Amino acid sequence: MKNISNYVNENKDRFLNELIDLLKIPSISADSAYKKDVIHTSEVVKTRLEEAGCDHVEICETAGYPIVYGEKIIDKNLPTILVYGHYDVQPPDPLNLWNSPPFEPVIKKTEIHPDGAIFARGACDDKGQMYMHVKAMELMTKTNQLPCNVKFMIEGEEEVGSSNLAIFVKNNQEKLKNDVILISDTGMIAKDVPSITTGLRGLSYVEVEVTGPNRDLHSGLYGGAVANPINVLTKMIASLHDENNHITIPGFYDKVEELSKEERAEMAKAPFSLEAYKKSLDIDAVYGEAGYTTNERNSIRPTLDVNGIWGGYTGEGAKTVIASQAFAKISMRLVPNQDWEEITQLFKKHFESIAPKGVTVKVTPHHGGQGYVTPIDSIGYKAASKAYFDTFGKTPIPQRSGGSIPIVALFEQELKSKTILMGFGLDSDAIHSPNEHFGLFNYYKGIETIPLFYKYFTELSK
Amino acid sequence: MKNISNYVNENKDRFLNELIDLLKIPSISADSAYKKDVIHTSEVVKTRLEEAGCDHVEICETAGYPIVYGEKIIDKNLPTILVYGHYDVQPPDPLNLWNSPPFEPVIKKTEIHPDGAIFARGACDDKGQMYMHVKAMELMTKTNQLPCNVKFMIEGEEEVGSSNLAIFVKNNQEKLKNDVILISDTGMIAKDVPSITTGLRGLSYVEVEVTGPNRDLHSGLYGGAVANPINVLTKMIASLHDENNHITIPGFYDKVEELSKEERAEMAKAPFSLEAYKKSLDIDAVYGEAGYTTNERNSIRPTLDVNGIWGGYTGEGAKTVIASQAFAKISMRLVPNQDWEEITQLFKKHFESIAPKGVTVKVTPHHGGQGYVTPIDSIGYKAASKAYFDTFGKTPIPQRSGGSIPIVALFEQELKSKTILMGFGLDSDAIHSPNEHFGLFNYYKGIETIPLFYKYFTELSK
Repeated sequence: MKNISNYVNENKDRFLNELIDLLKIPSISADSAYKKDVIHTSEVVKTRLEEAGCDHVEICETAGYPIVYGEKIIDKNLPTILVYGHYDVQPPDPLNLWNSPPFEPVIKKTEIHPDGAIFARGACDDKGQMYMHVKAMELMTKTNQLPCNVKFMIEGEEEVGSSNLAIFVKNNQEKLKNDVILISDTGMIAKDVPSITTGLRGLSYVEVEVTGPNRDLHSGLYGGAVANPINVLTKMIASLHDENNHITIPGFYDKVEELSKEERAEMAKAPFSLEAYKKSLDIDAVYGEAGYTTNERNSIRPTLDVNGIWGGYTGEGAKTVIASQAFAKISMRLVPNQDWEEITQLFKKHFESIAPKGVTVKVTPHHGGQGYVTPIDSIGYKAASKAYFDTFGKTPIPQRSGGSIPIVALFEQELKSKTILMGFGLDSDAIHSPNEHFGLFNYYKGIETIPLFYKYFTELSK
Repeated sequence: MKNISNYVNENKDRFLNELIDLLKIPSISADSAYKKDVIHTSEVVKTRLEEAGCDHVEICETAGYPIVYGEKIIDKNLPTILVYGHYDVQPPDPLNLWNSPPFEPVIKKTEIHPDGAIFARGACDDKGQMYMHVKAMELMTKTNQLPCNVKFMIEGEEEVGSSNLAIFVKNNQEKLKNDVILISDTGMIAKDVPSITTGLRGLSYVEVEVTGPNRDLHSGLYGGAVANPINVLTKMIASLHDENNHITIPGFYDKVEELSKEERAEMAKAPFSLEAYKKSLDIDAVYGEAGYTTNERNSIRPTLDVNGIWGGYTGEGAKTVIASQAFAKISMRLVPNQDWEEITQLFKKHFESIAPKGVTVKVTPHHGGQGYVTPIDSIGYKAASKAYFDTFGKTPIPQRSGGSIPIVALFEQELKSKTILMGFGLDSDAIHSPNEHFGLFNYYKGIETIPLFYKYFTELSK
């Protein structure tokens, strides 16, 4: 392909400013207070896809937030790439830990990003990575180099479980027909170590509620005589892991795929420094399931983490109260073969069963999704590998990610096509955390690498 | 004493309206946002004491909120009663559980209070009970029946530990010299069962903080590989009780006073229905330390309760995050002979010692106080007993309370005088809870009973 880097260089300021405009809109799908902003974001994405050269761009309404669809069909006989991404973002709190407001993007140099990185909620997950595809599309159309057909499907509910996208996909199999699905919503091992994500963890996210007395009580008059919902909740949550940090929910591990010695040896080759890892987090030790390495714990092993807990008096000073209720949000990361709906039921059954007398327990499933593994001998994987080699000068490393993109397993099931996960973010980019950012180097590299994937996927498909 | 009930009857509307005005001021000492209101409340109390006939009423400044002092010395040779109360109140949250705004008092009839009760934060604890003493003072002076000397000391930091009152008492032993201390900040067994509180539990209140990684992390990328501060906090708190609900802090029980069979048998005579107790709280079972009854668990046994817990994402929807920090407010109720400062140190030492690698733990003591027991053969107790008999037609039952008034032990230590706890509230009055209230019957009965205590205490002191 000609002049890819020239085109990127000539337009890099505009590419950046367009992304900044997109990042200024607080499209927080988890908080209904931002509904207007989320919908406005979908309209901006529609306009950008049209400008990039897509036809029939439409805002597809759902029971929740809309899905933006656009396509460019140049020849029915050529392969079709379906690009998926999301325009919604995670809530930014805790706000006090941001060095600059989450929706006022700023460019700052960092040790890892000497060319500068753009700091804003969604910079990496996923507005920045999604927008690389929009700009790559512009590049290919404006330079008359689009080698195949392309379809865009950009949703607004990825951070809350994509439940409406699932329905949309089931109802639009013909419209979404494709030969490969291309997603940039994952990371790469390091700035100079390209990698392709070959596995994702599944997810089950639940909220639990423990109710004791019918009102808050004075801890002096009732302390020690009635079940304290907060104490009970801590005991129940604590019991979900044993002394080896194995999860104690009966049946939880039944379907977990155990990797072979060889596979684990292969994984262990990925460059990783435990010291640097601990230093980057300011921790004196890692912590996790006995018998597994850090890289195994956060990729091939299932986990259970409390994502939020609250109850009683949390304000300034002291209040001697026994709260009537206590709450927690709990998520489980699942590995291939674990069915998220089955795990959710196992959790519910177990958690309700360990409730002591004197309290009632309610478990409310939030959302979830299956894990996913993609083969490394597919045309899509090979095309991605060649594209990375051209732009990074290195063959990318296949890598299992600990993250979840619940929709990927569903894509394969409904659309019968494989997904290629070309991620350009870094673990240190703080996605889902305060001060999320995305390196400008990575942003532009992505825009250069994507067209090459189109080229090689078309060639290898012949 | 003449015409006590006549005077109360003739003035009951004014007595009620004055209390309502006092309850309208949100004097929340735990929340600095209400500083103005707390100070304003002290000024109103000063005026009311002057109107009731006190001399030399002054607002005594402290490092925190002021103490209102007033006195009436009629004859150096007569005994002196020191009345203590507090004008600050607990925070009202959770606000959504109040049926009427906490600082907009309303009168409503209830099953237990057919004559009506006044609903507002502080109605019972302690503005309502404190104001009974102001009105009893008015009654005695206006009807020229004050039989002895009286001193009032009304503070504004009881709900946050009375640390400045402690200093004030130490520095003003001569000014506060008295023969007995009279406090209405406790309850009675039932509306028709008067009781005198002969014991109070001590208190140690701490805040704990668990810090893991230096920032919130994506639970997919880091889940299972680093210590999750919330999971760790739940494990640490859960470990503070064993399977018999004994507290596991080494040395915690060393100085606990064990009651004799006889004393426990005596206690067991107090009217109590476990069924009614459970029904009033909507719980199917009580819960507590093995080997003790409900009444023992919340009076003669020490306890440990979490009063508040928070960490991670607690907003609407789902956020797959591992929080950098988790927090809890924990209070321990102590029994006589347990030293609160020693227990606080034992807690700190133990809690820090059980922190796993990968997190740091900080324990911050909030405040505390010693427990207290008063003999039932003192002049003060006998005077109170006779006063109750006159107004209720029944001899009051001596009762150990589970609550704490940290300052009482200090009074005895610094002022060398015993405290009589004449409480007129009911456990069901929901102090420290939403919809706190105080029965009008109890309010007026208190105003009638207090002057009789003055009378009998003076007579028995001759």
